[in-house]
Amino acid sequence: MSYSAPLKDMLFAMTELAGIDRLSGLPGFEEATVDTAQAVLEEAARLHEDVLAPLNFEGDKSPSTWKDGAVTVTSGFKDAFHQFAEGGWQGLQHPSEYGGQGLPKLFATPCIEMLNAANLSLGLCPLLTDGAIEALLTAGSEAQKQRYVPKLISGVWTGTMNLTEPQAGSDLALVRTRAEPQGDGSFRIFGTKIFITWGEHDMTENIVHLVLARTPNAPEGVKGISLFIVPKFLVNDDGSLGERNDVHCVSIEHKLGIKASPTAVLQFGDHGGAIGHLVGEENCGLEYMFIMMNAARFAVGVQGVSMADRAYQKAVVYAKERVQSRPVDGSAKQAVTIIQHPDVRRMLSTMRGLTEGARSLAYVAAAHCDLAHRHPDSAQRAEHQAMYEFLVPIVKGWSTEMSLEVTSLGVQVHGGMGFVEETGAAQYYRDARILPIYEGTTAIQANDLVGRKTLRDGGRVAASVLIQVDETLSALRSHASYRSSAAFQAMHRHLSAGRDALDSAVRFVLEHGKSDPNAVFAGSVSYLMLAGVVLSGWQLARSLLIATDKRSEDPAFHDAKIATAHGYATQVLPRAVAFEAAIAGARDGEGVLAMHEHDF
Amino acid sequence: MSYSAPLKDMLFAMTELAGIDRLSGLPGFEEATVDTAQAVLEEAARLHEDVLAPLNFEGDKSPSTWKDGAVTVTSGFKDAFHQFAEGGWQGLQHPSEYGGQGLPKLFATPCIEMLNAANLSLGLCPLLTDGAIEALLTAGSEAQKQRYVPKLISGVWTGTMNLTEPQAGSDLALVRTRAEPQGDGSFRIFGTKIFITWGEHDMTENIVHLVLARTPNAPEGVKGISLFIVPKFLVNDDGSLGERNDVHCVSIEHKLGIKASPTAVLQFGDHGGAIGHLVGEENCGLEYMFIMMNAARFAVGVQGVSMADRAYQKAVVYAKERVQSRPVDGSAKQAVTIIQHPDVRRMLSTMRGLTEGARSLAYVAAAHCDLAHRHPDSAQRAEHQAMYEFLVPIVKGWSTEMSLEVTSLGVQVHGGMGFVEETGAAQYYRDARILPIYEGTTAIQANDLVGRKTLRDGGRVAASVLIQVDETLSALRSHASYRSSAAFQAMHRHLSAGRDALDSAVRFVLEHGKSDPNAVFAGSVSYLMLAGVVLSGWQLARSLLIATDKRSEDPAFHDAKIATAHGYATQVLPRAVAFEAAIAGARDGEGVLAMHEHDF
Repeated sequence: MSYSAPLKDMLFAMTELAGIDRLSGLPGFEEATVDTAQAVLEEAARLHEDVLAPLNFEGDKSPSTWKDGAVTVTSGFKDAFHQFAEGGWQGLQHPSEYGGQGLPKLFATPCIEMLNAANLSLGLCPLLTDGAIEALLTAGSEAQKQRYVPKLISGVWTGTMNLTEPQAGSDLALVRTRAEPQGDGSFRIFGTKIFITWGEHDMTENIVHLVLARTPNAPEGVKGISLFIVPKFLVNDDGSLGERNDVHCVSIEHKLGIKASPTAVLQFGDHGGAIGHLVGEENCGLEYMFIMMNAARFAVGVQGVSMADRAYQKAVVYAKERVQSRPVDGSAKQAVTIIQHPDVRRMLSTMRGLTEGARSLAYVAAAHCDLAHRHPDSAQRAEHQAMYEFLVPIVKGWSTEMSLEVTSLGVQVHGGMGFVEETGAAQYYRDARILPIYEGTTAIQANDLVGRKTLRDGGRVAASVLIQVDETLSALRSHASYRSSAAFQAMHRHLSAGRDALDSAVRFVLEHGKSDPNAVFAGSVSYLMLAGVVLSGWQLARSLLIATDKRSEDPAFHDAKIATAHGYATQVLPRAVAFEAAIAGARDGEGVLAMHEHDF
Repeated sequence: MSYSAPLKDMLFAMTELAGIDRLSGLPGFEEATVDTAQAVLEEAARLHEDVLAPLNFEGDKSPSTWKDGAVTVTSGFKDAFHQFAEGGWQGLQHPSEYGGQGLPKLFATPCIEMLNAANLSLGLCPLLTDGAIEALLTAGSEAQKQRYVPKLISGVWTGTMNLTEPQAGSDLALVRTRAEPQGDGSFRIFGTKIFITWGEHDMTENIVHLVLARTPNAPEGVKGISLFIVPKFLVNDDGSLGERNDVHCVSIEHKLGIKASPTAVLQFGDHGGAIGHLVGEENCGLEYMFIMMNAARFAVGVQGVSMADRAYQKAVVYAKERVQSRPVDGSAKQAVTIIQHPDVRRMLSTMRGLTEGARSLAYVAAAHCDLAHRHPDSAQRAEHQAMYEFLVPIVKGWSTEMSLEVTSLGVQVHGGMGFVEETGAAQYYRDARILPIYEGTTAIQANDLVGRKTLRDGGRVAASVLIQVDETLSALRSHASYRSSAAFQAMHRHLSAGRDALDSAVRFVLEHGKSDPNAVFAGSVSYLMLAGVVLSGWQLARSLLIATDKRSEDPAFHDAKIATAHGYATQVLPRAVAFEAAIAGARDGEGVLAMHEHDF
């Protein structure tokens, strides 16, 4: 059940693909060097491998429990969380003025990957707390920041996001929770929130709930939603804890996976009203929530990489141990380890390619985010921000969907043992299943990619991404290795086809977005998946070029990178054309739109 | 949690695609008419919908339990099993001389689909019993048949298949269980068998274990395995039960799914040796086991259809109830049921297409099996047998793999509710995960398709399948509707491309099977999946033609068939070319074979 952080792969993606050296020149990031990265990652690896990872299986076997409104977490979690917080990991990417480390998102990303690979259930608590910190830093008053952020960064308190209600899941326009002004600047909150991750627990002395609610006479729909801070215990002016607030956990869910993470139903205001404080402007709650959601969406995409990598590692260990059947090529008379069988090799290679491709894309996106915040040139900032925003739904949607495939292959490599819970492979399969659902389903990500990220700017960012892919294709074609390397040829052929498929998909979206929105949205998930397949392939193509050029520095490491890219080119990239066909398949009520509702 | 057997769809596949009328003319099948089929299916539906289906969720919540060697099944299961047996369903496809109904496999197949859709865990008990019956009928002595088969058919006893040992999963050459002759014709059996489905339970008074073991001095490997009957209670000459045999259930597995079905570790011979009786010839055990395994593999493929259909039905119900978000085309100002959203439509359409395609292929295969047994012409029998054997690994591998996709989409349609166990969608996702593993993993099916079903006859059957696909393509192209129907055009385009991809894959296997077996076996699962995608698409193309011609008889039903075929053509068939690229991607140690073992 152990986890070993893939530090070398992470550093490769950070330095060679995401371009860490572009960051260290930026104001405030002077220390963001490769050496710092290595030191930070090694330190993070120790904690996550030794402390958090060993609790993962136990958390699944002995989940959090609820009794009389209180939630008791799995034994060991509280101590692990405090070690995490005391190590400064919660504050890694947050400003030093509130107790954080002020490091780039590119540094935080591999740490988030490790955290969630080590222990997805536990990792959710810092992930949600990050979201709360982001929202307060963006929209909170200075007093609110001073009061809450340092305690959240230090792990004395944790944070939550309260969006969903029984009738309002993907559709926040349907939020009904009420906020009544008390005349003293505070509000009383009434309503029910469901699916609140780490909404109640006994790891910290307080929990800071950020809650979407409607004030009286607020406009209907998403334009009438405001954001409130509702702490579990009220906070006195001196920062000490006051009375218990009127927010109570009435139950937790019995879930398919992430069982150690309590998913709470929270009842606000059953005993007179929960005291809440408005964050930012009234009726701007959705906008602020989107800030924390975008950070959370990116992090959930990284969780996809985490789960995929952990499942891959476990499958590799098993495939190297398990002896079964003679080789198909007759090269041995005895049964051999199953990693020597071609189909097991195919599964592991696919798992590895998907994981590395998605990791690379996520790290590249993180660097864009850093450059968007810190680049001295405003045009550059805008350019990087646009790239980051284009990539977020892809990182979220694609990485999480691919984690379902990888964790499923992980079970399959184990054969019958994969179906037995004691083995542990099944837990990853169950845990990963939430990833394409929470923080916006894949369809919601796809709507974002189509609407806000492609149609709104007339495909400008999409076009610039395609130009960058073309540059990589040219580099492959003109490289000295092209003629002799099957990997180069396979990558060039399938990335070209994938690039063309993506180009057609973008055109389809642009041409039909207004005239036939149903057709475009019927293909939106296929568009997202196509983008994920091709852009991850693009990163692996870059990796192929770099590994070829640097091969002599570390032949085994770079040969593995070349082989991974080659495997992805033949096993994954060809899917691009299938997604394109699926996108083009629905027009004017045809294809998947042809069937009448009552005939399903 | 209810299940409604899709009788109309089943009868369509039986009559229009599998050609029930070809069977009713065969000797012994005089009563196998459409009217009989309808009556049998309606009767089966009542039992499965009313008695077995309601127990499915309870079985998951309160699985079978083990204590001191005894297994207590979920409350209600025993009674349900006896209703099943008393209704004659265990004997449906078995000979009337032993108490069966003697109906064609084509009639048994929809009943097996219903049984497993209603309750996969319970359905496994009859499925394994069917295997034991088949093996005894094929290889048992007349006395053995008389002694065991009627009791198995009547459900007084149940049967099991004991193959797997801790060191021998896919590789039966590694079986170590010993059988020592006692001089009186009987043997004493010593060893440990694992993963024995329904290996111990309290539903019946006896359990008939069929066990693979080695006699002294047997050759090594698979040529030294014999098959033994080892009843839980010895059977006296008058058929009454004698002493408890020395086979004991020492534990049951804690599994990801099918929790109500006890998966036993059986210990043979810890107290002096379990009494066993040889079935057929010594050292021929594997051959006999393959007979029961082939029947079981086909049935597991049908289980894939079952799980997919149940997940589809549940998703449709939810999508028609759940109200969320306004339509993307602005056609309403209020939130609507999610089935009106294009991406939900895409998911449901994909689920439906995959399910109907795989069902159609399985039913067609069943008819080939019936014709192989009963056709008066021996050349025809051989032809149908070859077709059936070609299709079995595809039905098993493809239908079960697609059931993972469909049950996963089923969770996704439910959003957050899909991740909560109370909803029930997650159970299908967990239950289905065993299907591509047991009775031979997908890789084992793919090896069978490559080795015994393609290479051995030089691609003869594969070529005849492609000719049949071509006939359907011609029928599409020359049909009066072709010019005006987007469904016809999409199906023709994508089935043509899929057919060509399958053709190339077959050529690749034939050309490289001897010279580069590693490359061929690295692509074997892709070849199987490609065959599944294309041949299911072929059946849906036939369905499109028939539904178009018969549309006026029942417009709504046939329009749904046309739309289902159209959706499959655009959403699923295009994957064929991606699988083909994956197959061709590994040659001479390239692609997925390029990475060194130690670099994983």
